[in-house]
Amino acid sequence: MDLLSIDSLSDTQIEQILGRSRHFFEKNRAAESGTALGGKIVFNVFYENSTRTAMSFATAAHRLGASALSLSVEHSSVKKGETLEDTARTLNAMRPDALVIRHRDNGAPAKVAQIVEAPVINAGDGTNEHPTQALLDAAAILQRFGRIEGLKVAICGDIRHSRVARSNAKLLPRLGAEVRLAGPPELLPEDVPPLSVDEAIEGADVVMMLRIQRERLEQELGDGPGEYLRRYGLTADRLARAAPGAVVMHPGPMNRGVEIDSAIADDPQRSLITVQVEMGVAVRMACLEMLVA
Amino acid sequence: MDLLSIDSLSDTQIEQILGRSRHFFEKNRAAESGTALGGKIVFNVFYENSTRTAMSFATAAHRLGASALSLSVEHSSVKKGETLEDTARTLNAMRPDALVIRHRDNGAPAKVAQIVEAPVINAGDGTNEHPTQALLDAAAILQRFGRIEGLKVAICGDIRHSRVARSNAKLLPRLGAEVRLAGPPELLPEDVPPLSVDEAIEGADVVMMLRIQRERLEQELGDGPGEYLRRYGLTADRLARAAPGAVVMHPGPMNRGVEIDSAIADDPQRSLITVQVEMGVAVRMACLEMLVA
Amino acid sequence: MDLLSIDSLSDTQIEQILGRSRHFFEKNRAAESGTALGGKIVFNVFYENSTRTAMSFATAAHRLGASALSLSVEHSSVKKGETLEDTARTLNAMRPDALVIRHRDNGAPAKVAQIVEAPVINAGDGTNEHPTQALLDAAAILQRFGRIEGLKVAICGDIRHSRVARSNAKLLPRLGAEVRLAGPPELLPEDVPPLSVDEAIEGADVVMMLRIQRERLEQELGDGPGEYLRRYGLTADRLARAAPGAVVMHPGPMNRGVEIDSAIADDPQRSLITVQVEMGVAVRMACLEMLVA
Repeated sequence: MDLLSIDSLSDTQIEQILGRSRHFFEKNRAAESGTALGGKIVFNVFYENSTRTAMSFATAAHRLGASALSLSVEHSSVKKGETLEDTARTLNAMRPDALVIRHRDNGAPAKVAQIVEAPVINAGDGTNEHPTQALLDAAAILQRFGRIEGLKVAICGDIRHSRVARSNAKLLPRLGAEVRLAGPPELLPEDVPPLSVDEAIEGADVVMMLRIQRERLEQELGDGPGEYLRRYGLTADRLARAAPGAVVMHPGPMNRGVEIDSAIADDPQRSLITVQVEMGVAVRMACLEMLVA
Repeated sequence: MDLLSIDSLSDTQIEQILGRSRHFFEKNRAAESGTALGGKIVFNVFYENSTRTAMSFATAAHRLGASALSLSVEHSSVKKGETLEDTARTLNAMRPDALVIRHRDNGAPAKVAQIVEAPVINAGDGTNEHPTQALLDAAAILQRFGRIEGLKVAICGDIRHSRVARSNAKLLPRLGAEVRLAGPPELLPEDVPPLSVDEAIEGADVVMMLRIQRERLEQELGDGPGEYLRRYGLTADRLARAAPGAVVMHPGPMNRGVEIDSAIADDPQRSLITVQVEMGVAVRMACLEMLVA
Repeated sequence: MDLLSIDSLSDTQIEQILGRSRHFFEKNRAAESGTALGGKIVFNVFYENSTRTAMSFATAAHRLGASALSLSVEHSSVKKGETLEDTARTLNAMRPDALVIRHRDNGAPAKVAQIVEAPVINAGDGTNEHPTQALLDAAAILQRFGRIEGLKVAICGDIRHSRVARSNAKLLPRLGAEVRLAGPPELLPEDVPPLSVDEAIEGADVVMMLRIQRERLEQELGDGPGEYLRRYGLTADRLARAAPGAVVMHPGPMNRGVEIDSAIADDPQRSLITVQVEMGVAVRMACLEMLVA
């Protein structure tokens, strides 16, 4: 079985992952490693750079007693013109116990999964999906609120290019949340009803801000960083529209002062941002355990 | 003891490696890791990029319970002007249990082995040797045919620059095979009798195609990719000259449509290409076990 | 507890590290790994490239049964404009058992340590400190002389920019040695009394030469390599001024023929250079054990 998208998971599997994540979160706090995946080898194949996701998966693998072996683009045959399929065949022939892949092309992990016999985990593909991010977001919300059912979640920013938004927009409604997508009109997909950031945040329990790429900011919006914050970012004024006790999330890395005001990001009452990272390791442990053990 | 070249191995050692490779091939298929090298540390020192070889050695080390620590050129003191000998002295002083090295200069692993006390494995040096590749090729042939004695093996392509050809031309005859080297006249070494690819393939049991570098193609041969395939590559027509039941091999990464027709590479009856990769991990486990355990 | 500078260590801790280093030095010679840190995860975060230090820490971690996960600049969010503090928050949330950091900015490890709850080890920050280098230098001297008390140590070269000199100038006097700093006047800090290399070496028991950066050589001194050797480097003539039985040290990587004559670096009676590297793994094991176990 692979973990390629939110749709590929059954309700039972989602429940299992969320439940085990809570368990692993506590274990990691106590600095306890396990041996459930002792002797297993996880290939970490990142065609895009990433601090947090690559380290998070590697940490998760090692916390379970497995080894993570990293293959980064710089060291790969990609530069020698090998096709993705041939790379997949090669990696498969080395018989890893799981393969984690991040790729700039939508659907690349699915292509790889058709070839690789071991479980394949999509760690983000282009603008398509990033299922373990949505799962860790759900787990972080669940930890804070004790439930997801009935919560209003505003996801704001560059929706069009966000695999995080896409996976969350699939997962959270399945768990009973209402998801509102908002952002600059130029950065909303055509099938998303136009909604302003102010409208989305109104009464929301969770405000999830997305990273805006600097290049996109200048070229597509013609905005400076401060201008973006004023028009679409999360400021104290804007957050005041949310429900009492609303929390703030961000998949990172943050552009402080662009999509989010720095003080809000650091507010321990409001911000779940580091909890998301911490839950990320726990969720990836749960996924690896489910797929590999 | 080091593994620097085919000549450095005794017949008994070759036999042992091939025998243990069969054993490890089965273990890996069953996803079983061992602990024979538990607590051991293998330094993976790659001065040239490589997906398959670096990952293959790392996987082999971990499947035996050892840890592989990678040192790539980008992170090395090479850029600071340190000599190879000084790097070797430094690495030796860290007391690794084995050191795997790939280097663009012929003889670099031998130089390093004079300094490093732990076993040194040559993972490819310039145009000189790539002994574990030849061993995995032999193991893959042996698995398919049950023997190597008496087989006719055509190795075709850029013989002059190929360490794969060089190591195979030493190993396979020792195991009783007849090896025929063929390729564009410009790319044959002077001491190799001129033989056309068609002649080499005639009646061959094994057809091993070599990777041709794109730059070499244009600059030394003045050929386009399709032109090379027509003149020197493995096409269905050309393969028809081989013995019935002949198999196709390639050390990878492949240039599909250049040195090999894509359909042939993917023909499950003919192609041993992914078996080579799979056997690669097994052979490297056998080598590490022999040298380190 | 963190290991950020020599001053952050108590005399008892220094004594403990030096004592355990001797123990681990012997263990490593015997190729014995331990399990004291089994299941522990060490993050190796290098913002500057380094063969020896990164590999040394990784080897130390694995020799103790821990796993070292590497984060190099190329793969980090740094390029995406994330602040050091945010990277530290992210890494902390992954709950490593220790974090080793090298950074070009003075004080960066201290900043990170204020955020990261696990022990942080400074593996070199700008021109500030490199405490484990000083500890391994002390351990290497101790192994050779059986004492540090009363020894005369000349540290020569680019003192102004050397974190190695800085840490040694703090550690060695605490252990009873007399430290003399010398080098080109342009490369001495203002608070260091001007002393020629010849004067510093006069009667010294230990002569520690520092690496001079090629760029600095040309731009700040206007010297060619051989000119630097003649004026400030360690030649046989200059070494003749030292005490009988004096030893030579260098933190590496060496510029042979620039700051040190090649024959001296290779003299087994004189040179402690590879012992330094070997002791480096042992000292880092002792530090990790003290901080993490």
